[in-house]
Amino acid sequence: GAPGTGYGYPPAVDPLFGYFSAVAGRDGQISPEELQRCLQGAGYGNGWETFSLETCRLMIGMLDRDGNFQMGFEEFKELWNSLNQWKHTYYTVDRDRSGTVNEQELHQAIRTYGYNLSPEAFRVVFKRYARREQTIITFDDFIAVSVRLRCLSENFRRRDTHQNGTAMLSYDEFIRFSFVV
Amino acid sequence: GAPGTGYGYPPAVDPLFGYFSAVAGRDGQISPEELQRCLQGAGYGNGWETFSLETCRLMIGMLDRDGNFQMGFEEFKELWNSLNQWKHTYYTVDRDRSGTVNEQELHQAIRTYGYNLSPEAFRVVFKRYARREQTIITFDDFIAVSVRLRCLSENFRRRDTHQNGTAMLSYDEFIRFSFVV
Repeated sequence: GAPGTGYGYPPAVDPLFGYFSAVAGRDGQISPEELQRCLQGAGYGNGWETFSLETCRLMIGMLDRDGNFQMGFEEFKELWNSLNQWKHTYYTVDRDRSGTVNEQELHQAIRTYGYNLSPEAFRVVFKRYARREQTIITFDDFIAVSVRLRCLSENFRRRDTHQNGTAMLSYDEFIRFSFVV
Repeated sequence: GAPGTGYGYPPAVDPLFGYFSAVAGRDGQISPEELQRCLQGAGYGNGWETFSLETCRLMIGMLDRDGNFQMGFEEFKELWNSLNQWKHTYYTVDRDRSGTVNEQELHQAIRTYGYNLSPEAFRVVFKRYARREQTIITFDDFIAVSVRLRCLSENFRRRDTHQNGTAMLSYDEFIRFSFVV
């Protein structure tokens, strides 16, 4: 319901709802473009903590359950919690407070998350997103990496029926799993 | 060698080499950021025919053979040919000359390429990149879709040993195949 209407005590309003409802249409769903504005409104727009449209698309794709590529308020709250955790990891591994993470710091972050990547796979992840002569990962790209690793790993695990790190995938599943993030 | 030096006839210089060498460093390799500038210099910077950094990263990932996420001149020429083909498809399917393609036009383009996607997979591909209330695909995103479909399909096919549309993948391979584009 709309906050602040009616008599008596105001309902306990989730402060996040304000940011969300400012951009959500009547259907209560937001698109990647709207999520970008929403996160800006919520304080992620200052300086280097800005999200590209691409990263917002990844966030929507990760939490999209019904395949409409929109985000409801429940998913937005879930995203908010994940963002806080990832941001904490980012600041923790960025020991020299450079504002970006280097190869070693990204490696540490991925270990913190618990993903077990071969040196070859880690190299792909790092180089895919590294800037400035392949030395640094920005905050926006760090979140992109975090979103994709989580979503891809979850989808793979669901098909890894023997829990042995391999899965039989159809071409169609492979395209869907890869394209959604 | 450098064009236009020495006596006698000038060597037959590939005009593309000029764009490439203008941004390539001494090692003759270009990064995604350099590719973005290179394609701008070659005429892809005007109006809506501009490439985002993300799409340039995808282009590098698709043609990256040695895992260094850089592009040599041979790969650049290969990319140039692919871009011309994709651009031709884009203009062909954009019948109403709107400058963007809609869902039906994207479907036709993918059929032209020869990929056989289920309605569900096509829906993921379209919605992942659709803008403006999920109605249109821009040129930049169209190229992103083309690059990812080609690269993912090629990598999958290499693991589809029985050529029956299924493949056994390890978690590590799945992450590498998905992350490189």
